[in-house]
Amino acid sequence: MHFAHDDATERLREQLLSFMDSHVYPAEPVLAEQVAADPDSWDPPPVIGQLQQAARDRGLWNLFLPTLTNRQYAPLAELTGRSPLLAPVALNCSAPDTGNMELLARFGTEAQRERWLKPLLAAEIRSAFCMTEPDVASSDATNITTRITADGDAWVVDGRKWWSSGAMSGRCRLLVVMGKTDPAAEPHRQQSIVLVPRETPGVTVHRGLHVMGFTDRTHGGHAEITFDRVRVPVANLVGGVGDGFAIAQARLGPGRIHHCMRLIGAAERALELMCARVVTRSTFGRPLAEHGVVQEWIAESRVRIEQLRLLVLRTAWLIDTYGNRAAHRDVQAIKIAVPAGVEWVLDKAIQAHGAGGLSQDWPLSMLWSHARSLRLADGPDEVHKRSLARHELRPYRDAGRDG
Amino acid sequence: MHFAHDDATERLREQLLSFMDSHVYPAEPVLAEQVAADPDSWDPPPVIGQLQQAARDRGLWNLFLPTLTNRQYAPLAELTGRSPLLAPVALNCSAPDTGNMELLARFGTEAQRERWLKPLLAAEIRSAFCMTEPDVASSDATNITTRITADGDAWVVDGRKWWSSGAMSGRCRLLVVMGKTDPAAEPHRQQSIVLVPRETPGVTVHRGLHVMGFTDRTHGGHAEITFDRVRVPVANLVGGVGDGFAIAQARLGPGRIHHCMRLIGAAERALELMCARVVTRSTFGRPLAEHGVVQEWIAESRVRIEQLRLLVLRTAWLIDTYGNRAAHRDVQAIKIAVPAGVEWVLDKAIQAHGAGGLSQDWPLSMLWSHARSLRLADGPDEVHKRSLARHELRPYRDAGRDG
Amino acid sequence: MHFAHDDATERLREQLLSFMDSHVYPAEPVLAEQVAADPDSWDPPPVIGQLQQAARDRGLWNLFLPTLTNRQYAPLAELTGRSPLLAPVALNCSAPDTGNMELLARFGTEAQRERWLKPLLAAEIRSAFCMTEPDVASSDATNITTRITADGDAWVVDGRKWWSSGAMSGRCRLLVVMGKTDPAAEPHRQQSIVLVPRETPGVTVHRGLHVMGFTDRTHGGHAEITFDRVRVPVANLVGGVGDGFAIAQARLGPGRIHHCMRLIGAAERALELMCARVVTRSTFGRPLAEHGVVQEWIAESRVRIEQLRLLVLRTAWLIDTYGNRAAHRDVQAIKIAVPAGVEWVLDKAIQAHGAGGLSQDWPLSMLWSHARSLRLADGPDEVHKRSLARHELRPYRDAGRDG
Amino acid sequence: MHFAHDDATERLREQLLSFMDSHVYPAEPVLAEQVAADPDSWDPPPVIGQLQQAARDRGLWNLFLPTLTNRQYAPLAELTGRSPLLAPVALNCSAPDTGNMELLARFGTEAQRERWLKPLLAAEIRSAFCMTEPDVASSDATNITTRITADGDAWVVDGRKWWSSGAMSGRCRLLVVMGKTDPAAEPHRQQSIVLVPRETPGVTVHRGLHVMGFTDRTHGGHAEITFDRVRVPVANLVGGVGDGFAIAQARLGPGRIHHCMRLIGAAERALELMCARVVTRSTFGRPLAEHGVVQEWIAESRVRIEQLRLLVLRTAWLIDTYGNRAAHRDVQAIKIAVPAGVEWVLDKAIQAHGAGGLSQDWPLSMLWSHARSLRLADGPDEVHKRSLARHELRPYRDAGRDG
Repeated sequence: MHFAHDDATERLREQLLSFMDSHVYPAEPVLAEQVAADPDSWDPPPVIGQLQQAARDRGLWNLFLPTLTNRQYAPLAELTGRSPLLAPVALNCSAPDTGNMELLARFGTEAQRERWLKPLLAAEIRSAFCMTEPDVASSDATNITTRITADGDAWVVDGRKWWSSGAMSGRCRLLVVMGKTDPAAEPHRQQSIVLVPRETPGVTVHRGLHVMGFTDRTHGGHAEITFDRVRVPVANLVGGVGDGFAIAQARLGPGRIHHCMRLIGAAERALELMCARVVTRSTFGRPLAEHGVVQEWIAESRVRIEQLRLLVLRTAWLIDTYGNRAAHRDVQAIKIAVPAGVEWVLDKAIQAHGAGGLSQDWPLSMLWSHARSLRLADGPDEVHKRSLARHELRPYRDAGRDG
Repeated sequence: MHFAHDDATERLREQLLSFMDSHVYPAEPVLAEQVAADPDSWDPPPVIGQLQQAARDRGLWNLFLPTLTNRQYAPLAELTGRSPLLAPVALNCSAPDTGNMELLARFGTEAQRERWLKPLLAAEIRSAFCMTEPDVASSDATNITTRITADGDAWVVDGRKWWSSGAMSGRCRLLVVMGKTDPAAEPHRQQSIVLVPRETPGVTVHRGLHVMGFTDRTHGGHAEITFDRVRVPVANLVGGVGDGFAIAQARLGPGRIHHCMRLIGAAERALELMCARVVTRSTFGRPLAEHGVVQEWIAESRVRIEQLRLLVLRTAWLIDTYGNRAAHRDVQAIKIAVPAGVEWVLDKAIQAHGAGGLSQDWPLSMLWSHARSLRLADGPDEVHKRSLARHELRPYRDAGRDG
Repeated sequence: MHFAHDDATERLREQLLSFMDSHVYPAEPVLAEQVAADPDSWDPPPVIGQLQQAARDRGLWNLFLPTLTNRQYAPLAELTGRSPLLAPVALNCSAPDTGNMELLARFGTEAQRERWLKPLLAAEIRSAFCMTEPDVASSDATNITTRITADGDAWVVDGRKWWSSGAMSGRCRLLVVMGKTDPAAEPHRQQSIVLVPRETPGVTVHRGLHVMGFTDRTHGGHAEITFDRVRVPVANLVGGVGDGFAIAQARLGPGRIHHCMRLIGAAERALELMCARVVTRSTFGRPLAEHGVVQEWIAESRVRIEQLRLLVLRTAWLIDTYGNRAAHRDVQAIKIAVPAGVEWVLDKAIQAHGAGGLSQDWPLSMLWSHARSLRLADGPDEVHKRSLARHELRPYRDAGRDG
Repeated sequence: MHFAHDDATERLREQLLSFMDSHVYPAEPVLAEQVAADPDSWDPPPVIGQLQQAARDRGLWNLFLPTLTNRQYAPLAELTGRSPLLAPVALNCSAPDTGNMELLARFGTEAQRERWLKPLLAAEIRSAFCMTEPDVASSDATNITTRITADGDAWVVDGRKWWSSGAMSGRCRLLVVMGKTDPAAEPHRQQSIVLVPRETPGVTVHRGLHVMGFTDRTHGGHAEITFDRVRVPVANLVGGVGDGFAIAQARLGPGRIHHCMRLIGAAERALELMCARVVTRSTFGRPLAEHGVVQEWIAESRVRIEQLRLLVLRTAWLIDTYGNRAAHRDVQAIKIAVPAGVEWVLDKAIQAHGAGGLSQDWPLSMLWSHARSLRLADGPDEVHKRSLARHELRPYRDAGRDG
């Protein structure tokens, strides 16, 4: 048992920390100004392109790709989470593109990789993942109603999706769409995935959904999209017919590591801001830092963050060592524990900032909305708890059956 | 001990319920459209004026004024809280105007009432209350740095305020400003209140502060304002020199009853939405309504709402019966209990709605941001808990001193 | 709406408060000594008889009986809960005897009342209520396995019960036993109740169950009892065949008011002890009373206790005004809210006392075990939440059915 | 970063697991019987000696001693925590003897080790640690009032201690006593430690303190002891004059690892019992295991236990790698997180067992009382949170000072 990062990871962490200090944090007020100057745009403001160039120059690019193990990449993802509107995209490591790139790298044909993966890796285009639907509880994949039907040399897609993150922006060219090819198959073989260029006739991007008041515009928002007899070539299928559920699952394991580590980075930043704040503000004759309730928030935040990080790193190690499937319970565990735990820390950091903590003057409200949304994204907490409990109960049930 | 509303209250509740059904709820999508059509305005969209006319026609106007007791008005405030962007303003019962109108009615001179109270009662103008400051923890009123100094026949105001709700809109004409007239006086006699017309030279309205992502535009937002050698006539002082703190306190008691009852209305609406939702959605072969965790949310929500409402109504009764000061501990108690309790209910209602619950398609995220902000507005929870605890401890300390 | 007690209640409260001060609190150390001197007895120590005599002399006797309304009796029950090992029994108002006496008064024949109710009202004997069973989840009454079968002029009882409070003591003469007379009837008509003298052949009292380490000896503990072909006369049936469930339910409503009010009394006492403690202890150069975390405990305790009490009093008013059935939802609400809320207060009071708070030197650990046990007694919280949620959801389901 | 145990640890875990199955669990009902047969004794029942012999025969003896690293011993301590009344003492690894043995091994003179350490290692005698005092908040060591004064060739001890665990039993021969030798020295040099044979004149063992209803008799309870002019030879000083605080601190680091891991073992056992229970009980037509609330308890329990264990193991690794002092923050973190977290799991396991969970029929109530008491033992949670927060805030304060 050994709890230190390896040397390569330490080196990358140092480079990235230095990049955060020299480039990312200074870009935050620039981003705010550029957004204010063009408030209705869904495209990335210019500062993002500049950061991407700077990151590329330093070799901090596409780090999520499997040249690094999960437990090497995880601490880097954490650092990017400290400035989630800028750092992940600066490194070309932002969701949902990372997941889509991994999906294409693992399951795509050579032609698919040539056409889509290459420009994604170069950040020339963006992509979206279209799974969730407005009309059903899509955390249960068997509920999905979008249909993908074969018609001659084409797949025809019909359905309505929402929460397709990134798709409000015209820079998003690729929609990775899950639908049912065979509703009569066994539950987890009904779904398939096809690649749909965003400009295909029949695709309508309707509007951006807000997340607790935030539009997430600079990332292309979260789109509601209808697919009305949308035709794509048969070659646009990813993997085989009926592979959709399995491919989506494969996408989720490392994706959750990334999401969770970024949230932990957000929590660390919030704790930093809280500490910096409370040593400089006074009420009732004493700095906030000496009020017992504030100390309790700080201590609890530290204790929770450490536990959450260890849980995620152990899960990364499990995936690296035993594979995605062996880590299934642990991937659920981090999905359950991290968003709720980080939300708690963010709430306390906001409270320590007084009314200002609610405002756009600190990143706290934005970070909070990310954490809150991850208690629902990829399935609400409750679905994962149910599943983890059933996993935990299995041996007891089996024993009961024998007895 | 008797827990039923009196007949007059029941009649008003019925009228208001009927007005909510016939006018307010149908106006909600209209409001959304009007905001979308003019996204950068800080003024009330036209639908609000129409609702105000309809309310006036029905006699549902300025109900907060002391023709009703607090425990008669409280259940009406609750109902308006079910649609907080529309119903309170429709009845001319929205913060901060209600508090300012009460302040003018109680402490204003006849001239002040003629000039400001009259048009406020007619909803011809709006007003703001400028107390909180960005540079200090203003929950401790002795921290306030804005200065009000006498200069000939004028008061001169210098300082910076923020969270001046409503003041982003040009329809807001009156700023009720607290500042220090005598920083050397005893702590609660240092402050005075002056009336400052928004168009006075030296007043600069800088920007609107967001509340967890929301701008609250249709209410005139929450402004940051500087006062740079702003001169107003001596006659613009409210009450006497040094009365500022006492006047602000008098404003707060009934104000908190209103805030808290509106939040309880928000919680009731959220519980309604949650119940309606879970009987129509299914996962894993059963309606959400039959999942134990969802049932727990609903039961806990009901149990918490009932307790919170009783606590507020008892406080209203205390104010009615024994006056503001006698109810001080109880006013703190509702400030501590209600925002946090309602936030909990809203969080669960959001969770029951899946990702949609985060979005603009339901009022839940907006209601949540109101509840969250009230854990900070008028002083963070922690300040009130500290004060209530000291109140509770006083007899023990005194006994200790004797012993 | 009116939140003050009536004059009669105020007078009784004063008498009882005075009795607590003059007799009950001083008897607490006496009880501890008498228990220590005879550690293995399950009978009430002599001090209890003396207190009973003193209470009788003051007319503080059998107050639970319907000469008082529920909202008159409730505040008295609260006061007795401040010293639950002594005050309720001193006034002959302790569970389960109160419930059994009400049951006999309401549903008993004249002969049953003569034989059992009279000596119970005089505190000459004690009684137990035998419902819960070790082998099934008895919160679901249809699970009950004890059988009551007719055989000639007798009912024959066979089964195993536990948590029969009071029955370890020989002073307990009457067992009120619920069993199934007709397992084939509809679910809530399967059960009947018979009166079984404790000394009847076939009755075996096996052992006392502990409650989180406590034996509750001075109240006759909590017994496990088997009934092996126990014969009682046909006249010992209470009510009619199949009435058992309804009678048990009727017993529960006011009984829960009593339980909950006593717990609120326990919470008030704990808060008192906490306040008294923290003004006299110092750590790190300041009294505990000035530590922010302790202040938060005190404020939260006050805020929670007030809410819980209002909820129970409103429920008492509902029962008084509209009857048991109309108050069903509210009786569930108090069962859900009070034990958990009071447990929280007790936990904090213990923590404020340091390690001593865990010990027999303060009543806190004993009070805590009562509160904890009431999260399970009369059905676990979860059963009540489920039921309350279903109640809340009914109109939505019905609407869904119509729609 | 690597999360697997080494081979030596795995082998020891297997041996210990097998010993738990073959000897420890079967001894639990035997212990209960032997206690029931001799309810007033404070000495270990015979079954404990038999288990010790069996453990010694298998080489499972004194494992806490530094032949194993902390991260090798920690997983073994966890396993013993599954049966805390039997397994730790069976392996001669129970508190407070382990801490006292380490203290003697590290700081004792050869003569002290010969006289006391040897028989402790052989389990021929037991020992107690006398630090906490009834009259002061002893979590702040500067509050300690016991005096140790030099008088000729003797140290004279005067004072009152409580929570001296184990000292109610005559098998306890050694009291390790902390007192002040120089109240005028700097705060952490005022204290010294002396060895006091329990039979020394002037030592009076008064009574056993209960822990939430439990006496912990089989471990010699928790004694209140007075020292009235107790004389011991000068050679009985441990370390130097003024070393008492530092020695006590050195004792605490690994001690907290042990305590925390045993609690985690308790939580694992509770989770096992909960799972086993809920697959066999049904309410409302379905096994408890299929009720959503129960599933939530199980999932949350698993997720929390994993986090807590990782936090403790990382702390063990820190101590092994960088020493006690470097791990100070982390030792505080586990003290904060583990007792509260495990208490939560135990509460849910009790709830899942229904009323039986409160009783002596399951180990849950006893395990709960251990977890609860550790939120106070060695300093209440709040003291550790305060200290950890100050540690976290230090760099911000220092920066503030520079700025």
